[in-house]
Amino acid sequence: MAYFPASLENLIDRFASLPGIGRKSAQRLAFHILSLSDDEAESFAESIRKAKKEVKRCKICRNYTDQDVCQICSSDRRDRSKICVVSDPKDVLSLERAREYNGLYHVLHGVISPMNHIGPDDIGVKELLIRAAENDVQEIIMATNPDTEGEATAMYISRLLKPFDIKVTRLAYGIPVGSNLEFADDATLTRALEGRTEI
Amino acid sequence: MAYFPASLENLIDRFASLPGIGRKSAQRLAFHILSLSDDEAESFAESIRKAKKEVKRCKICRNYTDQDVCQICSSDRRDRSKICVVSDPKDVLSLERAREYNGLYHVLHGVISPMNHIGPDDIGVKELLIRAAENDVQEIIMATNPDTEGEATAMYISRLLKPFDIKVTRLAYGIPVGSNLEFADDATLTRALEGRTEI
Repeated sequence: MAYFPASLENLIDRFASLPGIGRKSAQRLAFHILSLSDDEAESFAESIRKAKKEVKRCKICRNYTDQDVCQICSSDRRDRSKICVVSDPKDVLSLERAREYNGLYHVLHGVISPMNHIGPDDIGVKELLIRAAENDVQEIIMATNPDTEGEATAMYISRLLKPFDIKVTRLAYGIPVGSNLEFADDATLTRALEGRTEI
Repeated sequence: MAYFPASLENLIDRFASLPGIGRKSAQRLAFHILSLSDDEAESFAESIRKAKKEVKRCKICRNYTDQDVCQICSSDRRDRSKICVVSDPKDVLSLERAREYNGLYHVLHGVISPMNHIGPDDIGVKELLIRAAENDVQEIIMATNPDTEGEATAMYISRLLKPFDIKVTRLAYGIPVGSNLEFADDATLTRALEGRTEI
């Protein structure tokens, strides 16, 4: 009972295959594409092709880049003694936005997750160890997400880094700035208490 | 402070320009595209191009089709004496799913909305009048959405159809089947009472 033309059904299927896009949203998006001008639709298609073709991973930190080595890794203004390990390219943006960190990054593109068959080899752990061994890195900051898998990944990597003479740290847990104690969950409050500092 | 490569930023912008897609979702979608294989990304781009190229509006009912005349309008199993007027191609699918209606459709692709500069000429009202005049249509069923603009559009069109010797009807308002009186709003309840039928 498909009354839409095949190419429209196909476009809906494509959109529906994207994460977080259900069937109804996919329909809405496909209809929107049809409502664009020919040029606009063409440049949408072209932007997918171009991004896929040009964007690769930085040879050093694995962050997305269109060069061999990304802007951050090739900058001479960054502190090369620190590497911040994040699970996702988005997290680099978040940290950069805070303008507090001036070191380098290492992007895992995921976390260790046996359920999903993602092991250390899939998330560039070896590359991190090579960086730790080769350069004069003094500190590696684990900044994976504070959930079970993020934690486990951070613990796993920090154990591997033990033999190196490098300080391994973890982002602080605590109450988010500007939030309300009332809404903080127990685990966060526990960590906030444990990590309390003198004022 | 854009640390993503230009082509990735561009793809994120494209996704963010789609209806209902915010900046964060756009990022997630763009990252998903990067995680696809080259072939998959290519066929995503191609499906946009192809849909845009092949899908056009049926010459008769203005529904989306890849032919000159759509499946429904060209079918000899449909009752050609009835035309159901809907505002959106999606609504054709919904009505077809109910398997109750066997007539033809007329797709407005919108509703009259002076605020958005959408007038009768933009939604194929003239084409509907031509169909009403030319063929032996006996009934035109207004099935625009039961909101202010949908209502106004239905009223406007039904007034234009007055001179023709055609029955103009409207979908019934009432309590949705399977729902709960408790949650029905006042307007719906009023309409349900007004439209009560003997059992």
